[in-house]
Amino acid sequence: MSTPEGPTAAVSEKSAIEESPPQHGYTADKDAYLRRLRRIEGQVRGIARMVEEDKYCIDILTQVAAVTKALHAVSLGLVEEHIGHCVIGAASEPDPGLRAEAIDLKVKEAADAIGRLLR
Amino acid sequence: MSTPEGPTAAVSEKSAIEESPPQHGYTADKDAYLRRLRRIEGQVRGIARMVEEDKYCIDILTQVAAVTKALHAVSLGLVEEHIGHCVIGAASEPDPGLRAEAIDLKVKEAADAIGRLLR
Amino acid sequence: MSTPEGPTAAVSEKSAIEESPPQHGYTADKDAYLRRLRRIEGQVRGIARMVEEDKYCIDILTQVAAVTKALHAVSLGLVEEHIGHCVIGAASEPDPGLRAEAIDLKVKEAADAIGRLLR
Amino acid sequence: MSTPEGPTAAVSEKSAIEESPPQHGYTADKDAYLRRLRRIEGQVRGIARMVEEDKYCIDILTQVAAVTKALHAVSLGLVEEHIGHCVIGAASEPDPGLRAEAIDLKVKEAADAIGRLLR
Repeated sequence: MSTPEGPTAAVSEKSAIEESPPQHGYTADKDAYLRRLRRIEGQVRGIARMVEEDKYCIDILTQVAAVTKALHAVSLGLVEEHIGHCVIGAASEPDPGLRAEAIDLKVKEAADAIGRLLR
Repeated sequence: MSTPEGPTAAVSEKSAIEESPPQHGYTADKDAYLRRLRRIEGQVRGIARMVEEDKYCIDILTQVAAVTKALHAVSLGLVEEHIGHCVIGAASEPDPGLRAEAIDLKVKEAADAIGRLLR
Repeated sequence: MSTPEGPTAAVSEKSAIEESPPQHGYTADKDAYLRRLRRIEGQVRGIARMVEEDKYCIDILTQVAAVTKALHAVSLGLVEEHIGHCVIGAASEPDPGLRAEAIDLKVKEAADAIGRLLR
Repeated sequence: MSTPEGPTAAVSEKSAIEESPPQHGYTADKDAYLRRLRRIEGQVRGIARMVEEDKYCIDILTQVAAVTKALHAVSLGLVEEHIGHCVIGAASEPDPGLRAEAIDLKVKEAADAIGRLLR
């Protein structure tokens, strides 16, 4: 994708990027995740305010359920990206021995993470 | 319920209510709930920081699961207090007709709230 | 509710009822619960058949999720009836000391049961 | 894929498939899954028996929670095997265009299945 006339600096920057940070699946949607987490943080603060103002317990419970649901959605997005990037990344490891090991590790991590969400 | 002395009495009764509001079950533990919610708010902020710093998705998922668990514990406390106060309060309504109706309403509210948590 | 001219048999039947079986909230809906549980049992058997026939894992997961949802609905019904009958029953205990203790016990049982469902 | 030797070859190929069907991740553990599902089926039957015998609602709820937990464990195993086999299988598709598409499909299926479990 890089043109042959492009500056060397840009090329090395590109490969540096390829080898580092965006290593995680969620990086592409980073801003969207941050926005969702800020909103969740605000919702939790809103629940604290409801407790402070002695709001009706059932109304507080409704808000807590909404936050739990929003966190589930964030989790699900992260799991999907872990599978789509980390697991698939392990599957593209060229050495077959290392590949099998890397896949096992990543699949196990995914299953453990899902298990923690189900509990 | 208002005393024959008229409006002043009613006003002071109102402010007494405003100042001593243990009308909900959780009020006695209000400070404990507020502390827990502040901690959860901090945890959510910590998760946003992890996303910002491109932390490993599985580590983020572990934190999200911890927050979900903490919210479940808060919910459970609120449900327990709803049952112990609002439902039981309805059961002590002296008029039998109103009592049956009040109990039905409070039990239904509790079941609906638990249903939202289970989903 | 029993008329003064009523047969003695009816009276003793009534006290037998009071002292025995239909003491639980779900008894009135017993047949409905049994039907739902039979259906769930059949669904689990269907899942085993899918495994036997090497059906696609995602289709099996869809069925497992459906059974989990059906069990949640049964749980929610039982919790609602526990609150509406056992907790409320404790609240009608005439001795105030015993009543407070009975309520605490039944509310605690309900909260523990809900906690197990949330986990 | 069938050899020119005709029907016999095709038949033996077919029986080879029938005898070595690890087309799904869970096939290797098929017997273990069937045993777990039979046990779950028995537990559901046991819950129906408890309802029939008017057992205490809280004890029934404890059993329902145990079955839900056992189903979660089955789900988690199936999800792990879906990721380890179906997703990874898609990643080993030699054609890069088909591979990307196959991965997307399998990851999406996994995420949707996990989403249904979380609900």
